[in-house]
Amino acid sequence: MLSLPLGYRYAAVYAGIRKQTKGDLALIVPDQPAQAAAVFTQNVVQAAPVRLARKHLRSSSGKVAGVIVNAGNANCATRTGDNVALSTCKALGRALDAKRNQIIPSSTGVIGVELEPKLITEAIPGLVEKLSSDAFQSVAEAIMTTDTRVKIASEELKLKQGVVRVAGMTKGSGMIHPNMATTLGFVMTDAAVDARDLQKMLMPATERSYNSLSVDGDMSTNDMVLLLANGASGIEPDAKERLVVSELITWVMESLAEQIAADGEGARKLIVIRTCGFKTDDDARRIARTIANSPLVKTAIAGNDPNWGRILSAAGYSGVSFDPSDIDIDLQGLPVCRGGLAAEFEENELKERLDAAEVRIKVASRSKRKGHARFFTCDFTEGYIQINGSYRT
Amino acid sequence: MLSLPLGYRYAAVYAGIRKQTKGDLALIVPDQPAQAAAVFTQNVVQAAPVRLARKHLRSSSGKVAGVIVNAGNANCATRTGDNVALSTCKALGRALDAKRNQIIPSSTGVIGVELEPKLITEAIPGLVEKLSSDAFQSVAEAIMTTDTRVKIASEELKLKQGVVRVAGMTKGSGMIHPNMATTLGFVMTDAAVDARDLQKMLMPATERSYNSLSVDGDMSTNDMVLLLANGASGIEPDAKERLVVSELITWVMESLAEQIAADGEGARKLIVIRTCGFKTDDDARRIARTIANSPLVKTAIAGNDPNWGRILSAAGYSGVSFDPSDIDIDLQGLPVCRGGLAAEFEENELKERLDAAEVRIKVASRSKRKGHARFFTCDFTEGYIQINGSYRT
Repeated sequence: MLSLPLGYRYAAVYAGIRKQTKGDLALIVPDQPAQAAAVFTQNVVQAAPVRLARKHLRSSSGKVAGVIVNAGNANCATRTGDNVALSTCKALGRALDAKRNQIIPSSTGVIGVELEPKLITEAIPGLVEKLSSDAFQSVAEAIMTTDTRVKIASEELKLKQGVVRVAGMTKGSGMIHPNMATTLGFVMTDAAVDARDLQKMLMPATERSYNSLSVDGDMSTNDMVLLLANGASGIEPDAKERLVVSELITWVMESLAEQIAADGEGARKLIVIRTCGFKTDDDARRIARTIANSPLVKTAIAGNDPNWGRILSAAGYSGVSFDPSDIDIDLQGLPVCRGGLAAEFEENELKERLDAAEVRIKVASRSKRKGHARFFTCDFTEGYIQINGSYRT
Repeated sequence: MLSLPLGYRYAAVYAGIRKQTKGDLALIVPDQPAQAAAVFTQNVVQAAPVRLARKHLRSSSGKVAGVIVNAGNANCATRTGDNVALSTCKALGRALDAKRNQIIPSSTGVIGVELEPKLITEAIPGLVEKLSSDAFQSVAEAIMTTDTRVKIASEELKLKQGVVRVAGMTKGSGMIHPNMATTLGFVMTDAAVDARDLQKMLMPATERSYNSLSVDGDMSTNDMVLLLANGASGIEPDAKERLVVSELITWVMESLAEQIAADGEGARKLIVIRTCGFKTDDDARRIARTIANSPLVKTAIAGNDPNWGRILSAAGYSGVSFDPSDIDIDLQGLPVCRGGLAAEFEENELKERLDAAEVRIKVASRSKRKGHARFFTCDFTEGYIQINGSYRT
């Protein structure tokens, strides 16, 4: 059962942007303009809505009256991209009676295909009409592209003054890679937190969630994670309480990231990689990420093949320096490598254990230092190839 | 028709290292110890034969009396790895009446499975017995693992004093990534060049060939490219002529690298990426490599999908800074992107052109600077997944 934050309304319609007749235009509106923080793609090629969203957040000092998202077209690398994003924000600003720079536009879909602005502007009145506090799920559905499952999460927490809630939705199953927001994510809380403190919460939460996630190593032009706080609970956490709220937000975002990995394009398995005992968290994360991005590891897991040599080899080219004879590797809790060498294991038993919806890889250094990380990815199957060989056409 | 260098003999046998009954142990022997240069994997996890080969080249000052290669077992991350490599070199040194440190061992295959040394040492007398100047091709076959085609190339050149020849063989179709030798490659010439000059020739040749090649982004623990010069032609190129011989060696290695990409695991297409107009060659190569490693680009090419947005997006996360509005992209010689935006193209015509054994991607910067690169990769098909989901078992 979702615990939805107070004071947000949602709506989704089919605006004809994608071929398939299902919601492709969605709206999230706080009852009062919310405080906001965001992280964006680090790709030097950035979609028009990403550029405009960044600009709006800056000029409004992190105030958001509405978030509009379309699926089916990335509005990226097109002649009219900036105008489409701008006219979208203008039209929604008018409809919500809000300042234009308090509107955040967001798009996901194919790159380099012109997006007809009228499809959006003409759908906006109907969209605003439909706004309802019950439509959270339908927005989560409308932002999906090749996703096969809706991805939502929520948490609630009782503080001294009362309960605060955090809920999030996300989309993404391909073109996902760390070092930036890595997909679309919208996280709402009804706690009262100002934009600067929100940004301080979002950064470490992103590090542990979206930046610890990889499906195919590709980094999109459109990624964005937006965190809103509308204060509708009437509760303003103090500095200590903000640490707890921050952890709550991180949990929601970790859950969203894990759901993305589990729904990776063509994936049959979620892979969770833990690394520990390395010099720094950063080293541990680099090793985990390199393993997560290795097609050889991901195909072995797809085939229930306990080919731990590929895991060791991927760690070895991560760019982190270590002594291979320090390395222990466990697969599904069974030791497969000890001190860099093969451990004895029952091949058939391990194969059976690998035939599961979730596969756990642990890589530990015997140097027992404090650096550790957790990273989400998925197995690599024929399905990924099929989905991506004909996405555009 | 191959032009084989004078003064080398070759042999291959089936020693029972791999399951399939075909040559898995091979030998290359110069009539006189040859001068040698090599590049090795940069993985911090290195197979025993790689470590020993490096040591031998150092202690012999780059002299090689014999090269022994086994396929089917990487002799990496095993308890007895060092002993196996050492006993191999001892046994071959005895059989060839050569110093042990003039023997170069080399292995390819699965990691972390113990290799029975007797399989090799007991096969060595028969192998030496079989040595013949005609068996070049059978060695090229014996070093194959998941390769579907033998990969060989040769060139010859008339200098003032006479003709010199260069011939090479290589193996590899998965776990291939630049930044090191990236596979096994053996290149022989009958020119007389000393080890130091050979190394100077090998470095730039590797940069333009094996380091401009990627199949899956995985970097192996066993990679090595070895260049031998036995002087059997009786011709000692002077400094100017060495530049030409160096170019000849590069051509052979570029051909070998291209053959590897074309035979990438599961590949149906060779992809050749050219980048130009960027600040430095290094920038151009980073962009080309990032495009080459993008699973989204590689699956689009597999599906004849002219999804140039993925190419632009991959360039954008290469880490090289550029203005997207400077970028022109051509696919199979047709403009698909001009100034970072969609160019008009005939979709069906382009799809037909993409349905070819070789696909050319060109990414040019309008800033017209001098940095350029060429990079080889292949498309990404269901076959890759099938091969790698069950390689070990």
